[in-house]
Amino acid sequence: MPRTPGTEGFVLNQTMLRVRDPEASLAFYRDVLGMTLLQRLDFGEMRFSLFFLSYLEKGESVPADPAERAAFIFNRSTTLELTHNWGTESDPGFAGYHSGNEEPRGFGHIGISVPDVAAACARFEELGVRFKKRPQDGAMKDIAFIMDPDGYWIEILSAKGMRAAL
Amino acid sequence: MPRTPGTEGFVLNQTMLRVRDPEASLAFYRDVLGMTLLQRLDFGEMRFSLFFLSYLEKGESVPADPAERAAFIFNRSTTLELTHNWGTESDPGFAGYHSGNEEPRGFGHIGISVPDVAAACARFEELGVRFKKRPQDGAMKDIAFIMDPDGYWIEILSAKGMRAAL
Repeated sequence: MPRTPGTEGFVLNQTMLRVRDPEASLAFYRDVLGMTLLQRLDFGEMRFSLFFLSYLEKGESVPADPAERAAFIFNRSTTLELTHNWGTESDPGFAGYHSGNEEPRGFGHIGISVPDVAAACARFEELGVRFKKRPQDGAMKDIAFIMDPDGYWIEILSAKGMRAAL
Repeated sequence: MPRTPGTEGFVLNQTMLRVRDPEASLAFYRDVLGMTLLQRLDFGEMRFSLFFLSYLEKGESVPADPAERAAFIFNRSTTLELTHNWGTESDPGFAGYHSGNEEPRGFGHIGISVPDVAAACARFEELGVRFKKRPQDGAMKDIAFIMDPDGYWIEILSAKGMRAAL
């Protein structure tokens, strides 16, 4: 299918979420969900940091050369970009971030496709992950929703499970 | 780099945004940003529809066979999933969706990597796209932010432009 002219080479590269505590978020996305931190960028004057995470394919690694590294990170589909505004992690007055699923609504979730939803969810249970919806809850038995440390929703789905919906 | 055990085959498949008027959103993501609608799913009892969009590579097309189609859509990284709750597009009382960038903050943006930010933005200007930040505004000259019909922010970036930040 041909692209709309003028959009050749466009790539859906990133989804950005603000996070309260990058240590907690990085541990979650790495240890629970299996992503790799590709790049950290610190902006001292503006007091924030960015963390770009992605799933690496077998044999892939982040290039050391800056130009190759930029292409590797910013031409790929897709990365999760976490923004940390310094200080939120230790500020007792910080109210937390908004998941988008209560009013005012907007953003809903990111979704991770897995080979086997039941197996993935059994592992999440063992790891103490918070669930919004377990596979057995509600009408849609083939999907689950877990929550990241900030309360953002993450759908857990599989191509096999989604086939019935098509 | 080896994956965390138990996360083999995990793919960051989707980012879901609620949209007021799918006709406006589909026109925007197709005609302005060059994505292809892979699949529409209607849930009549629950009165909502889902629209899965993605960038297709040259020569790619959506398979007709349901199992192949499900794998094509739900194993790929990544798709944009738009959720339309029926009726919002014609409800004068509907307040609109929340971009995540005013209080309460959370989700920030999706990001599209393009070969040339200046050329992409010149085309967006011609098409009457709303800008949050033009390339020449502010300190970061290599990126722009446009807005989709619901006011969600879309970063326009390039690997070349991001190289300086690494």
